[in-house]
Amino acid sequence: MSAHLDFVKKNAAYAETFDSGHLAVHPTKKLLILTCMDARIDCYTSLGIELGEAHIVRNAGGCAREAFRSILISQRLLGTREIAVFHHTRCGMLTFTSPQLREIIKSEAKSESSDAQEEIAKTVDSIDFLDFSDLEESVKDDVKFLQENPLVLNETKVTGWIYDTEKGTVKQVV
Amino acid sequence: MSAHLDFVKKNAAYAETFDSGHLAVHPTKKLLILTCMDARIDCYTSLGIELGEAHIVRNAGGCAREAFRSILISQRLLGTREIAVFHHTRCGMLTFTSPQLREIIKSEAKSESSDAQEEIAKTVDSIDFLDFSDLEESVKDDVKFLQENPLVLNETKVTGWIYDTEKGTVKQVV
Repeated sequence: MSAHLDFVKKNAAYAETFDSGHLAVHPTKKLLILTCMDARIDCYTSLGIELGEAHIVRNAGGCAREAFRSILISQRLLGTREIAVFHHTRCGMLTFTSPQLREIIKSEAKSESSDAQEEIAKTVDSIDFLDFSDLEESVKDDVKFLQENPLVLNETKVTGWIYDTEKGTVKQVV
Repeated sequence: MSAHLDFVKKNAAYAETFDSGHLAVHPTKKLLILTCMDARIDCYTSLGIELGEAHIVRNAGGCAREAFRSILISQRLLGTREIAVFHHTRCGMLTFTSPQLREIIKSEAKSESSDAQEEIAKTVDSIDFLDFSDLEESVKDDVKFLQENPLVLNETKVTGWIYDTEKGTVKQVV
């Protein structure tokens, strides 16, 4: 099964009624939403965001440090002045630690040549997987990182939220 | 204007009919979609993806190198085996170079103390903003990076696409 084989057909239906007339490159709400890559999350529908209104940055966990490059581009070149950080309940990032994941990857490489194993081990040992153990603290940490960062514009409004993947609800924590 | 002030009200309407019953943490299509943070893009609607089917990673440009941590977590812990890389027409990443953006940020810091200016300059000089000048080549580069990376699982199907923000259409390039 290759999911991409459906893209063209499904997209054709979308494109048929697509009207880009009102869409500009600058997000109209001057908003950037940062959230997790989790498959159960769609911030357009869950927050009532319309196409064209907000930059959406997503990575494993919704980690602000990794999103930093995108945030600078969003603020300095495309005019956003508000950042909403969403982490979520039952997040995969709460279920492992970086050392554990490194061991999983090394052990899955056991059938490779010893040179390849060595290269994989070296690379994986250099990666911080940005796992966290306390959901609410992880949101607060990310908001603090952005609020205190001298490269994030002073006038930026930063808020922090938890999305509940079972109830579909949001709760503001900062 | 603070966009976040609308979140709770709009989310309440969403949560009222939300049913998480069928949603699991493992994406059912074993698919990860990587795309840009651009406000004009919604891969759920434009590709007919349903909630629960795919991880969605988004950053400025849809850059694979920055998404690498998320991809490893997605593959090794959550079972995805396919990656679709989408870049798009009229992308902000085609409109500047890293040196230009560094100069913009430094010049916007002119009212700061000289110590703060120095810190900002040092940080910004260390950031590669991952801008690109050729859209199709940028997709091919990212697909190649993933296909050749020893930490991306061998059986991974990687495809590369361009989304047209004016027409709403997709075109496969790799």
